[in-house]
Amino acid sequence: MRGPDPGRGVDEFDAIERLLRPLSEGAPEALGLLDDAAVISARPGFDLVVSKDAMVEGVHFLPEDPLDLVARKLLRVNLSDLAAKGADPYAYLLAAAWPARCGWPERTLFVQGLRQDQELYGLKLIGGDTSSTPGPLTLSLTILGWTPAGAMVRRSGARAGDLVLVSGTIGDGLLGLKAAQGGLQDLDGAATAWLADRYRLPQPRVGLIQAVRSHASAAADVSDGLAADAGHIAEASGVALTLDLDRLPLSPAAQAWLSIQPERAAALAQLATGGDDYEIVLTASPVGAQHLIEEGRQAGRVLTEIGKVAAGQGVRVTCAGKELALDRTGWRHG
Amino acid sequence: MRGPDPGRGVDEFDAIERLLRPLSEGAPEALGLLDDAAVISARPGFDLVVSKDAMVEGVHFLPEDPLDLVARKLLRVNLSDLAAKGADPYAYLLAAAWPARCGWPERTLFVQGLRQDQELYGLKLIGGDTSSTPGPLTLSLTILGWTPAGAMVRRSGARAGDLVLVSGTIGDGLLGLKAAQGGLQDLDGAATAWLADRYRLPQPRVGLIQAVRSHASAAADVSDGLAADAGHIAEASGVALTLDLDRLPLSPAAQAWLSIQPERAAALAQLATGGDDYEIVLTASPVGAQHLIEEGRQAGRVLTEIGKVAAGQGVRVTCAGKELALDRTGWRHG
Repeated sequence: MRGPDPGRGVDEFDAIERLLRPLSEGAPEALGLLDDAAVISARPGFDLVVSKDAMVEGVHFLPEDPLDLVARKLLRVNLSDLAAKGADPYAYLLAAAWPARCGWPERTLFVQGLRQDQELYGLKLIGGDTSSTPGPLTLSLTILGWTPAGAMVRRSGARAGDLVLVSGTIGDGLLGLKAAQGGLQDLDGAATAWLADRYRLPQPRVGLIQAVRSHASAAADVSDGLAADAGHIAEASGVALTLDLDRLPLSPAAQAWLSIQPERAAALAQLATGGDDYEIVLTASPVGAQHLIEEGRQAGRVLTEIGKVAAGQGVRVTCAGKELALDRTGWRHG
Repeated sequence: MRGPDPGRGVDEFDAIERLLRPLSEGAPEALGLLDDAAVISARPGFDLVVSKDAMVEGVHFLPEDPLDLVARKLLRVNLSDLAAKGADPYAYLLAAAWPARCGWPERTLFVQGLRQDQELYGLKLIGGDTSSTPGPLTLSLTILGWTPAGAMVRRSGARAGDLVLVSGTIGDGLLGLKAAQGGLQDLDGAATAWLADRYRLPQPRVGLIQAVRSHASAAADVSDGLAADAGHIAEASGVALTLDLDRLPLSPAAQAWLSIQPERAAALAQLATGGDDYEIVLTASPVGAQHLIEEGRQAGRVLTEIGKVAAGQGVRVTCAGKELALDRTGWRHG
């Protein structure tokens, strides 16, 4: 673990020792965060799955968001990547660039959030870096997971004839951001509060890891937006995916929002391109899809069939039988 | 590899595809940066060494520094950690938060720097994240290396009776920062240019990896400052290190600077606590130290004996036979 910037005093050393080191307890590979690096022994028969997602204040979270929730979101957006790969959570490294406004109370709150979720998800802190910044709080987390050798679910395995499924509900990330920013005035308070919470604290689908690993032909986490992430699968697999927005699984809050929108198709397209859902979009053979839906139900995680895989390329999105024009990052207006 | 922030357009996708993906060529574990994660097969008989260092514009590099040099410094400060652990470079993940001022030309220059040094040091890009920021350019790199099982050199292995050695020269990082900021007016132009270059482009001691792994009892990279990093070894090993500043290896430029300072001991203490040298401080038995010095010489890398390990704790620093008062992050004035 790296210490302070030159000349910035003892604060970062203290922060590592008093706040971060306890998060590495029980992980001998962390070397108590006293070293330049962590060391991970080979685990024959297993692959190490590595992902790295960053979050920037004002871009990925709001300046007023409580820092324990920010910490938990940071862990969860990375856990979402592991879940989509069928990988079991193992450990993480954290790089944090702190603005001057974040003193001991703020950092303590942040670490409380890390502790809460690392216990919930079975992770340990094994290294990283901490420094100051003249800019916004900027966080980067490297997450490590394990799969049996060769079992990681890639984006590239979709085949013509597969079905497209998605976990949970779609669009809550987008609506949650609007709610957290004080929008969605036409919805009732309970719905906006639920949506804002969904934005601040995603629910990575770790309960589906085993089922995804066993039955999915391809999978991606829904972070850029359902259509974009389905597009990643289409591109990596060299196939075409068709998504039927009439089958989009929506939360009650999103349904309430949809019911008061002037154009249903345009509204559904917004939800399918909004991002930050941290669900899993995946493909599977028809038999695999049956297993996934059944095992998901047993794990309390709903999976919904929303489309099909065919020869070709790209993503087609239909609503009420008509095709909508989307570009690869969102809905193309007009 | 993660794509854009919601609603920010296609730029980040294009950047991944056109700029970053070529950096992953030849690394099948990167999955072409088309996936949510990289996957690393178990390598029986080897340990994976993982380190993560961040750099923030205005803190770790200057806003006017050319971005190819910034990229190379980012790789090199992380390579320095691997070198100090005796680990062979393998791969890296990159998280970059780009301010709006960095368009295609700036990012292209940055990637040119990555390419230059990843070829020089034998690294491949295997994953990461890219996003925007309203703040300064903020970079985080996770570096991966290999050692034979159990062979990583830790900070915790120093024993009473060992000698303390340091690679290269000390203090150039601190003086280089001053030079890059336009200070050091009393030095000649060649010296200040050399120092500024040393600050902008550290020289990680990868040529010493094999020797460090074979003969060092403990080692750390000199990033926080020689005294502080020696202190990390003392703390992790439960021993006392004594450093003799009269034996501090200095570059000709640093010697020129030293010769015009009013107080020699205070000036040497500044160099020993300044940080950003990216040398290796290590301990070894007297026999091991002989091997290190000899193998270092063969590799064209000077190692200098600067102190001893004894029972006790902490770091003592002496100059002209007198002990200087330092706190754990620097020289304590007065």
